[in-house]
Amino acid sequence: MAHSSQFHHHQLQLHARARAPPRVHGGGVQLQRPCLLHRRNATRIRASSSSGAASIIGGKFTAGQIRQEVALAVSALTSKGLRPPGLAVVLVGERKDSATYVRNKKLACEEAGIVSFGTDLPDTATQQQVIDAVKAFADDPNVDGILVQLPLPDGMDERAVLSAVPIEKDVDGFDPLNLGMLATRGTEPLFVPCTAAGCLELLQRYDVPIRGKVAAVVGRSNIVGTPTAMLLQNAGATVTVVHSQTPDAKAVCANADIVVAACGVPEMVRGDWIKPGAAVIDVGINAKDDPTKKRGYRLVGDVAFDEAKEVAGAITPVPGGVGPMTIAMLLKNTLDARMRSS
Amino acid sequence: MAHSSQFHHHQLQLHARARAPPRVHGGGVQLQRPCLLHRRNATRIRASSSSGAASIIGGKFTAGQIRQEVALAVSALTSKGLRPPGLAVVLVGERKDSATYVRNKKLACEEAGIVSFGTDLPDTATQQQVIDAVKAFADDPNVDGILVQLPLPDGMDERAVLSAVPIEKDVDGFDPLNLGMLATRGTEPLFVPCTAAGCLELLQRYDVPIRGKVAAVVGRSNIVGTPTAMLLQNAGATVTVVHSQTPDAKAVCANADIVVAACGVPEMVRGDWIKPGAAVIDVGINAKDDPTKKRGYRLVGDVAFDEAKEVAGAITPVPGGVGPMTIAMLLKNTLDARMRSS
Repeated sequence: MAHSSQFHHHQLQLHARARAPPRVHGGGVQLQRPCLLHRRNATRIRASSSSGAASIIGGKFTAGQIRQEVALAVSALTSKGLRPPGLAVVLVGERKDSATYVRNKKLACEEAGIVSFGTDLPDTATQQQVIDAVKAFADDPNVDGILVQLPLPDGMDERAVLSAVPIEKDVDGFDPLNLGMLATRGTEPLFVPCTAAGCLELLQRYDVPIRGKVAAVVGRSNIVGTPTAMLLQNAGATVTVVHSQTPDAKAVCANADIVVAACGVPEMVRGDWIKPGAAVIDVGINAKDDPTKKRGYRLVGDVAFDEAKEVAGAITPVPGGVGPMTIAMLLKNTLDARMRSS
Repeated sequence: MAHSSQFHHHQLQLHARARAPPRVHGGGVQLQRPCLLHRRNATRIRASSSSGAASIIGGKFTAGQIRQEVALAVSALTSKGLRPPGLAVVLVGERKDSATYVRNKKLACEEAGIVSFGTDLPDTATQQQVIDAVKAFADDPNVDGILVQLPLPDGMDERAVLSAVPIEKDVDGFDPLNLGMLATRGTEPLFVPCTAAGCLELLQRYDVPIRGKVAAVVGRSNIVGTPTAMLLQNAGATVTVVHSQTPDAKAVCANADIVVAACGVPEMVRGDWIKPGAAVIDVGINAKDDPTKKRGYRLVGDVAFDEAKEVAGAITPVPGGVGPMTIAMLLKNTLDARMRSS
């Protein structure tokens, strides 16, 4: 019923694997000099925003960078004979999408040299069995981070299961105390939820100014909208969270220098919702019917990309934008947990 | 060095003591029928907003109501032979303002039938002595709520001292976990910081619509601005937090149906920052030089009251607005803690 797996660290060749984002990075990437890279991006973004078509914020590329940075840090640990980070995933049930996510996370761990642990439980598992699986990893000194793949089967109390994850291993950042520390000036959370952290990392690595800027976050979920709004505010933005009761969502977005769309509504944010030159981060991944595609659908974000890219200064694509960042930040959080534990 | 005091419960006559707020409450108040009271306020607010002068949101009056409600609930407890709630205050040093606040809190406890405990420590007390005083109350089953009067003397680690308050006795709501639970959809905090709770209570008791409305919160402090913004958003408002890096604070406020000013800058929010008919909650209390006054100054809020009242639909005065609500909500939080402990 349960199994643990362990992968060995091996050197990555992420340069070759990460597709260079279109138009932003022309030449070879110098990971040793990220500042240079940032400045180059910033120049491109400014240049293209005046031409009426957005720069692409390449999440896949940036995620590859972060994964390589994590791999290098893990390698530095293990080369000293120290224990590599360990990440445990608890998966309940047979959902195909969940199984895919978990497989991708384990592969990403393997590539970065993070030891992967996992417990797979059937749909018929009791809540107590799930909690026991979490607690076993909580007690395991080789496990630095624990994540429970959501959603859990119907009828299971998500909050009760998640609260079994000790905060120092809460690499998903779902513990309300982490959110509270993120919201409290003068304290720092142990972990920021991965997708929210990924949004900020993209803005920062592409040198999008945040301090003194106006930001709109569309959606107020616990794991994306709310922590992203907090991160933006902590970085000095003036943030408005748009939600289902907002009287004029379009006006709020159209006034913003940064729009983060995380509402789960396909292509809700239209081109005329975007201020010319704004940075647009699209967290949504939605299947939209498309008979021209072999599989009958295509993936679209919460932003109408083709419209928005004509107005925005910089924009993330879907897929290949925020999506890859989530796993990259999970690896980063697991590394952080490992560094704290020693 | 330390002392504990205990007051006996006696019946309140708050009707006579709470001054009826000007223009809002004409007749006798019927505490048994708060809805009628609210509707009457709402009517007055609507009526007066068209006439160009705001209704007064009477914090002193409403605080009196809440204190009476708490007193009745405490009386119901003690009349059954049950233990009354207990509130402990730890005061360090000789600051006159702090001593006044603590005295007022103890008097308010006495009036409401809440047993008051206190430890006064000198400026020379060590941080460990302060923490030990907190811990003694944490272990005392007669104490339901603990508050540490801020500010602490220079050099003392506020966060370290506050973290000695167990969350179930954190009636100030300062624990980051409380803020995190307030920010997390699907969870409820044990306590909301008293001033923020007081702002919402005023809006609700004066029937100011929140759901679907636009709100501006000026200031992002941990104890007022941030929790007030969360409360407003949870109640369905679209909230923008204005802070020192906001490019156009005036425009944000002028677009808002509800403005909460909690920035600590005397009269920063001017009349032309207010949308006609908006509700204005002024948290600020600042001393402003005034040679016409015997004491040489007068108290002003963070809102230019004389200007704003000509535009707003409803507004809190300073003093007598939010100020009295803070102690009232502290008593309410202490009562809640007591009810949970039984």
